[in-house]
Amino acid sequence: MLTGLLNIELPVVQAPMAGVQDSALAIAVSDAGGLGSLPCAMLDAAGVARELAAIRSATGRPVNLNFFAHRQPAFDAVCDAQWRRVLRVYYDELSLDPDDIPAGPGRAAFNADMVEALRPFAPQVVSFHFGLPDEALLAPLRGWGAKIMATATTVAEARWLDARGADVIIAQGLEAGGHRGMFLSADVSTQLGLFALLPQVVRAVGVPVLAAGGIADAAGLAAARALGASGVQVGTAYLLCPEATTGALHRAALQDETRRHSALTNLFSGRPARGLMNRLMAECGPMSGQVPAFPLAAAAVAPLRARAESLGRDDFSPLWSGQNPAGCRAMPAAALTRLIAGRAD
Amino acid sequence: MLTGLLNIELPVVQAPMAGVQDSALAIAVSDAGGLGSLPCAMLDAAGVARELAAIRSATGRPVNLNFFAHRQPAFDAVCDAQWRRVLRVYYDELSLDPDDIPAGPGRAAFNADMVEALRPFAPQVVSFHFGLPDEALLAPLRGWGAKIMATATTVAEARWLDARGADVIIAQGLEAGGHRGMFLSADVSTQLGLFALLPQVVRAVGVPVLAAGGIADAAGLAAARALGASGVQVGTAYLLCPEATTGALHRAALQDETRRHSALTNLFSGRPARGLMNRLMAECGPMSGQVPAFPLAAAAVAPLRARAESLGRDDFSPLWSGQNPAGCRAMPAAALTRLIAGRAD
Repeated sequence: MLTGLLNIELPVVQAPMAGVQDSALAIAVSDAGGLGSLPCAMLDAAGVARELAAIRSATGRPVNLNFFAHRQPAFDAVCDAQWRRVLRVYYDELSLDPDDIPAGPGRAAFNADMVEALRPFAPQVVSFHFGLPDEALLAPLRGWGAKIMATATTVAEARWLDARGADVIIAQGLEAGGHRGMFLSADVSTQLGLFALLPQVVRAVGVPVLAAGGIADAAGLAAARALGASGVQVGTAYLLCPEATTGALHRAALQDETRRHSALTNLFSGRPARGLMNRLMAECGPMSGQVPAFPLAAAAVAPLRARAESLGRDDFSPLWSGQNPAGCRAMPAAALTRLIAGRAD
Repeated sequence: MLTGLLNIELPVVQAPMAGVQDSALAIAVSDAGGLGSLPCAMLDAAGVARELAAIRSATGRPVNLNFFAHRQPAFDAVCDAQWRRVLRVYYDELSLDPDDIPAGPGRAAFNADMVEALRPFAPQVVSFHFGLPDEALLAPLRGWGAKIMATATTVAEARWLDARGADVIIAQGLEAGGHRGMFLSADVSTQLGLFALLPQVVRAVGVPVLAAGGIADAAGLAAARALGASGVQVGTAYLLCPEATTGALHRAALQDETRRHSALTNLFSGRPARGLMNRLMAECGPMSGQVPAFPLAAAAVAPLRARAESLGRDDFSPLWSGQNPAGCRAMPAAALTRLIAGRAD
């Protein structure tokens, strides 16, 4: 039983969304009886400890801590220079010096420092994207009783996670916003819609499965349950909540009916992630063979984003969204959580 | 009410699948209380009349007649020659003369001849892929009381069909096998997983919506209903039925657990369609910018397919399948129809 396993009341997990939320959203969802999530991939160990302390002072409920489990690539100067040449026209347009671009927003893979940062808090739920870290890093978490959740985008990935002892598997349909969790293949044609992925994952594994992708309300939860899910993980629907830190341009795009077209793009980080189409995606093509490996691609676009946003433009902003942005609700996260769970007041 | 509107008993429509079925499958599904479909796009008017006569002599139940509503492109000799150059290595390998390739399997768009072929039978249900034909061609069908169904792959397409008087809209999630019904855009990144597409289409239109893509059993029907569908259209699941004309190589591929990877490919016809990966798709890339426009691309591959199949190889065969081939059942179509409807004996 998912709720018993995770010690929560409602089978609704708020998807961790790095860059658009901090502990406030996670606390609100957990306090409502769902499972809030704190995205930790863009935090250092001190930052994680600080957010965890804030969570513990605010709620006694479990909160999921989410990490990335990628392998950090070596810096490739040739590829990096090639990518900056592609972007040159934009640096010029925005009067930025391409030789003066700082290292961008990093995404650190889960490591031993993080284990030590977590240890004093003994968090009850930890989730991973892009596979799982080595068993040596998982063992301490299991030792203090944490349940391990991880994302599968194919049946093969679900079997891989099940064999390595994941306690809960998140079946991420390609409807989902943000980074694809794919880790056994880099071929986006392997990615499945949730109607096809979910029942096949449920049949393939022995642990509870969360459905993710396009789900925004109680009907979505009911549909996921019909296909065998034990619960749902919902991201995009929370992006307009007051507790999210979603920027004004991002909020405006999500509410713009003329901007419902999302696509997988690797331009912002180096890995495919779903966001609403914007100028950079339209002009470069959303998937490019010229971007540096994840997460190194982020550095080159970051100053373009900052400058354009200061001018009120989202031309270079990652407007993360699933394929159902119409499901966003500008309401408190607690109310949205109850609504998704079918417990609307 | 879908079943009342279509005069059927069960809310299960068998998807029309040109090349892998004839009237036998349609009759079996309709006799079981679902709605069988006859794919007419690869038949001429005489062929349609012949199949309709066979249907009428076998069953009094409604059967859906499916047509394509594309615009036939002009033959482009340069593009055609370029595509044959790409395939040259395969012609050589199979000892075929590339200068001696006949016109391939055509797909005729619905036209006035078809209206006249249908008129004596006054069919009760007619469905269209790739939009709708001109109103002048639809008016006679409406005149004899036919209900018009059409496929939408985006919310915009659903609104377009609703505005033009479609009686039922089929929301085709990108999980679905065979040709994408897309007609307002050629950009496959606009295509949505069914969990995102279905609820948005249901909210956008005023007519009953059928859910299509990845659905193979009663759980799929229940999930689709939870998201607002009035019924389901199921294709892939029927491919192993004895009444289907699915070839032996295609049947073997569908049952091969190591061949679960499907992709959208335009290599076989010129339009994106989902099939299991095979040699041609792997070597050329499933989507190519070099193929002639639909349906002209089919000619060049057809002789490769025929020769390779005679050697027992599916290297050049379109192995149409949705993303859930594990849902195929080698059982009579009537039993499968009842199973999907939740009326299994």
